[in-house]
Amino acid sequence: MTEQPKTVAFVVYPGLTLLDLAGPLQVLTPLTTRGHSVVTVGETRGALETDTPLSVSPTHAFADVPQPDVVVVPGGAAPTLRAMSDETLLSYLRSAAGTATWMTSVCTGSLLLGAAGLLEGREATTHWSMLDMLAAFGATPVTRRWVEDGPVLTAAGVSAGVDMALHLAERLAGADFAKFVQFAVEYDPEPPFGPLDWSGAPRELFAAVVNAWLTDGLAHSPALLARLKTAAPHGTE
Amino acid sequence: MTEQPKTVAFVVYPGLTLLDLAGPLQVLTPLTTRGHSVVTVGETRGALETDTPLSVSPTHAFADVPQPDVVVVPGGAAPTLRAMSDETLLSYLRSAAGTATWMTSVCTGSLLLGAAGLLEGREATTHWSMLDMLAAFGATPVTRRWVEDGPVLTAAGVSAGVDMALHLAERLAGADFAKFVQFAVEYDPEPPFGPLDWSGAPRELFAAVVNAWLTDGLAHSPALLARLKTAAPHGTE
Repeated sequence: MTEQPKTVAFVVYPGLTLLDLAGPLQVLTPLTTRGHSVVTVGETRGALETDTPLSVSPTHAFADVPQPDVVVVPGGAAPTLRAMSDETLLSYLRSAAGTATWMTSVCTGSLLLGAAGLLEGREATTHWSMLDMLAAFGATPVTRRWVEDGPVLTAAGVSAGVDMALHLAERLAGADFAKFVQFAVEYDPEPPFGPLDWSGAPRELFAAVVNAWLTDGLAHSPALLARLKTAAPHGTE
Repeated sequence: MTEQPKTVAFVVYPGLTLLDLAGPLQVLTPLTTRGHSVVTVGETRGALETDTPLSVSPTHAFADVPQPDVVVVPGGAAPTLRAMSDETLLSYLRSAAGTATWMTSVCTGSLLLGAAGLLEGREATTHWSMLDMLAAFGATPVTRRWVEDGPVLTAAGVSAGVDMALHLAERLAGADFAKFVQFAVEYDPEPPFGPLDWSGAPRELFAAVVNAWLTDGLAHSPALLARLKTAAPHGTE
């Protein structure tokens, strides 16, 4: 192996969306067969709830992994908005960004990168229902499955993390490796109703849902709430 | 709501493949907004390792959920083969099948349904690399993203659980609900290398991998090992 061994750190926090974490984690864990290290990191190693009936426990605390090479930040609903004022989490992201070659996110994980000041002047994406909010952090919102801008790689909502992670797998270990992983996870999608029909997107319904998340998640952060609502006046795109 | 409230139980066991569990769990958890109950069940409520650097803890023990309406069994590699002789797990599956309207699986989770005697005479699928092994349980192996045969619904490998779960969401709560969930998880797949090119499937490589899993997982179950090897003489299709 001629590659330098890298450490890939998945950041966990209370209430995250499980699939945002699990999709890329499944795709990138085989990097361990190439001599890389893949870990999950949280404020502590204790169990955390997710937005599903499953709790998860990371392998490491932030302090154990001070200089990851790759960081993956999953998103979520109100709990992710709440995490935007979690200074311990944001400090970890800022510090990690100092050494990491890749800072990546899934879904609203990009709002956490934004809150940490890491999206200024960059193109980025997030869940379709909250895309405009990225402008609050100086980012240019882009409608794409994943967006690579320098060391920052952001994915669209939830399931987009699998596509982003396969792209990242190629960047980290080459196309043959990424294609092997695609066979391993048998990623040959057949959505029963076909791809999303964006002309029928339930935009009003999601606007209401997102507003509820904002009210809940940012109840104690009025300045941040105002900033996000200014960026996305209707709560969504 | 005119539907009867149902209990959807996701079965967890040591070493499972995280995405097999997390994909369908993310898709089906919104059933709780329709008055249904979604839980994760294990032999105990203690934390379990997965095949990624993340431990998971279920919400319930088997004894707490004796009569689920829907059961989802995730798969995995050697640990899943090992679980084929876990009588506590198999007893739970047999007992649940007595009342459940749906017994479902992702990836090699179907081997656990098979080991519990629930695939006899049915069409079923599993991860492409172990498809032929289903014949050892009296099932007819089918190459399809998901296979519905009466109350038994089996999905292909790992990521196929998301497709299967959207299908199941429609069966349980209607197409509008399933389509809403598809927007919620933004399931609009764009595999970076496109769909799988089956003409280039690394069959020999996976045959070797599967043989290693069989040797590891079934070291203490020589009769079962022989049965599976007879069904799939080369360790794969």
